[in-house]
Amino acid sequence: MRFSIERGEIFSRLESVANAVAQKSVKPVLSGVLFRTTAEGKIELLATDLETAIKAVTTPVHIDGEGAFVVEAKVILEVIRNLPSGEIIFELQDNNLIVRMEKSKFVLPTISPDQFPEIEPTHGGIEIETSVTVLELMIDRVIFCAAKDEFMRNLNGVYWEIQGGYLRLVAADGFRLALAEEKIETDIEDRFLLTLKSMKDLQSSIKTALSDDLRIVYDGAKVGFYFDGIEMIARVVDAEFPDYRKVLPKAFKTRVIANTVVLSDAVRRASIAARLGSESVKIELKDQSIKLIAKSPEHGESTEEFDVKKEGDDILIAFNPRFLADSIKKIDTEEVELNFVDSNSPLQMNPVDVEGYLYIIMPIRLI
Amino acid sequence: MRFSIERGEIFSRLESVANAVAQKSVKPVLSGVLFRTTAEGKIELLATDLETAIKAVTTPVHIDGEGAFVVEAKVILEVIRNLPSGEIIFELQDNNLIVRMEKSKFVLPTISPDQFPEIEPTHGGIEIETSVTVLELMIDRVIFCAAKDEFMRNLNGVYWEIQGGYLRLVAADGFRLALAEEKIETDIEDRFLLTLKSMKDLQSSIKTALSDDLRIVYDGAKVGFYFDGIEMIARVVDAEFPDYRKVLPKAFKTRVIANTVVLSDAVRRASIAARLGSESVKIELKDQSIKLIAKSPEHGESTEEFDVKKEGDDILIAFNPRFLADSIKKIDTEEVELNFVDSNSPLQMNPVDVEGYLYIIMPIRLI
Repeated sequence: MRFSIERGEIFSRLESVANAVAQKSVKPVLSGVLFRTTAEGKIELLATDLETAIKAVTTPVHIDGEGAFVVEAKVILEVIRNLPSGEIIFELQDNNLIVRMEKSKFVLPTISPDQFPEIEPTHGGIEIETSVTVLELMIDRVIFCAAKDEFMRNLNGVYWEIQGGYLRLVAADGFRLALAEEKIETDIEDRFLLTLKSMKDLQSSIKTALSDDLRIVYDGAKVGFYFDGIEMIARVVDAEFPDYRKVLPKAFKTRVIANTVVLSDAVRRASIAARLGSESVKIELKDQSIKLIAKSPEHGESTEEFDVKKEGDDILIAFNPRFLADSIKKIDTEEVELNFVDSNSPLQMNPVDVEGYLYIIMPIRLI
Repeated sequence: MRFSIERGEIFSRLESVANAVAQKSVKPVLSGVLFRTTAEGKIELLATDLETAIKAVTTPVHIDGEGAFVVEAKVILEVIRNLPSGEIIFELQDNNLIVRMEKSKFVLPTISPDQFPEIEPTHGGIEIETSVTVLELMIDRVIFCAAKDEFMRNLNGVYWEIQGGYLRLVAADGFRLALAEEKIETDIEDRFLLTLKSMKDLQSSIKTALSDDLRIVYDGAKVGFYFDGIEMIARVVDAEFPDYRKVLPKAFKTRVIANTVVLSDAVRRASIAARLGSESVKIELKDQSIKLIAKSPEHGESTEEFDVKKEGDDILIAFNPRFLADSIKKIDTEEVELNFVDSNSPLQMNPVDVEGYLYIIMPIRLI
């Protein structure tokens, strides 16, 4: 088995597939990428951690013979990353993969492909269409709010909801929640939960996509993402995502419109004192003015004050400044809207004049 | 005591001075920067870890009253970094420093300036002149070869030698050595050793300099560096740097000229297999060709082969590829010269047609 392939072609495909490789695995074969010739004279690349699997097909310049091998993902990526552009020759000799380009030659040990787990495709199920651009934006807007702790199985991921002609992604960690929704053409209603690891793999993979079409298939147990010749299969999480609608505030008593950059700078400065101290920043809304106050016994006190547009009641409320900062960073409209109920109820933050994107942040109890 | 100062002016000065702040100190005052009004109506900034001290003078827009205070370096740097350009007002109230700009206000606790150690200036001694540009280059070319281990007192630093109309910097860690020399106008002969920490402080500080003149004073115990209104005092190390001349090979049997980028790429690729394996790359020089061979039981084998200009004997020799890569990175001429004695003697690597810069790398014994 021998084939040659353009460096640029194989590298982007390999990078995409390698996202699924297990970070720490007891099975050595799972730290590898499977290379396999197809009946159509192409090369299929495959990686999986048994939770997520990514497959890509790449077109060789020349191909000679059939076969398959598994090679350590980290090593083959390093090798190809460090080769210049041009044609790379791959050749399987006994149990070694020979990689050759001009006067560079690598002899890499391979693992038997028999040990590589078979990836089951999705079977039937529902199907929706969206685009790489839209999904990339939606993931970026919610993923950082997912719980990092793998033991919080129902929050350590992103919840997908297809309902009423919308695709909705929701992530929450108990202190905050992010929601992104976009119109799609479908009358299907369904929902599933994917792990944070699967979501990160998907995020990294779609980044490398050169075409925009994206198809999502859900068969009740697995979700398949199909885009730019890449197929990603992710197992859904068998856990119940909490009813996020219960967290969404129903009626607001205070509505504030602030300049996004001004608010963001003020929160960042308030964080200097808060960060090493109480991890809390007090927000005082009075008339058309907002005041951010942070204190720490060691690092002193900071106050920021500026004008905003306000409707409704004055309010005094406190937050973890990091949660405020994380969400503001994701708001790219000139103005940001802050909606409050009272000092003990969550804040809803959203861009002005953009529908379907919002953040809910729990306040810290004022002492 | 109250003064105002332009954000850009205070920030660059503070950044420079803060380099000397103790990283981990039992004395809290050493993690601070001393601010002090001078008789000329300026503000003096001072930081020290008792080994290195940096002082800078900065010009306020307005100044009112006299005084001094010490404020946590990390916090004041963070505060000023996050303020926009414009005039910042500093005011000492009781034991707090009030920092104000438009509607941002910080109240920062201060430490009594009485606890701040007095920095003794250099007393008499020898004096030489060079430039920030030259010294920056020289430090960059040698500092990475200094031993990282603080317990190797005589190698954990950079050796300075003023001799025969040259300023020479030498660093070594027992496996490799770097030497940089530049002509200076002096007939003084002297030498001293500075710690790696002092050298790093100096390197960071001169980076921010806006003017090029640099004066060095050595009084037998301390070295003073004077540039761009900044004064850095470093205590010399009371340890004997080994006689580096003994390490410099006397006569070579093989001289090779290679293209720097080609050699650098080849070493980088050879490192993929070597890095996780034996940490060794074999170099085979035969006729007008060089071959780099690296092997590891887990990650396979790599071979690189390309043409070079060679004079003298063929040779087979092995090195730690990281040491080769580190030094090649610092060679910015199109071609690099490799000078060999035999398989058990150190390699001398130097740029082609640039005098005064060289690297000595110990080989690994071939089995």
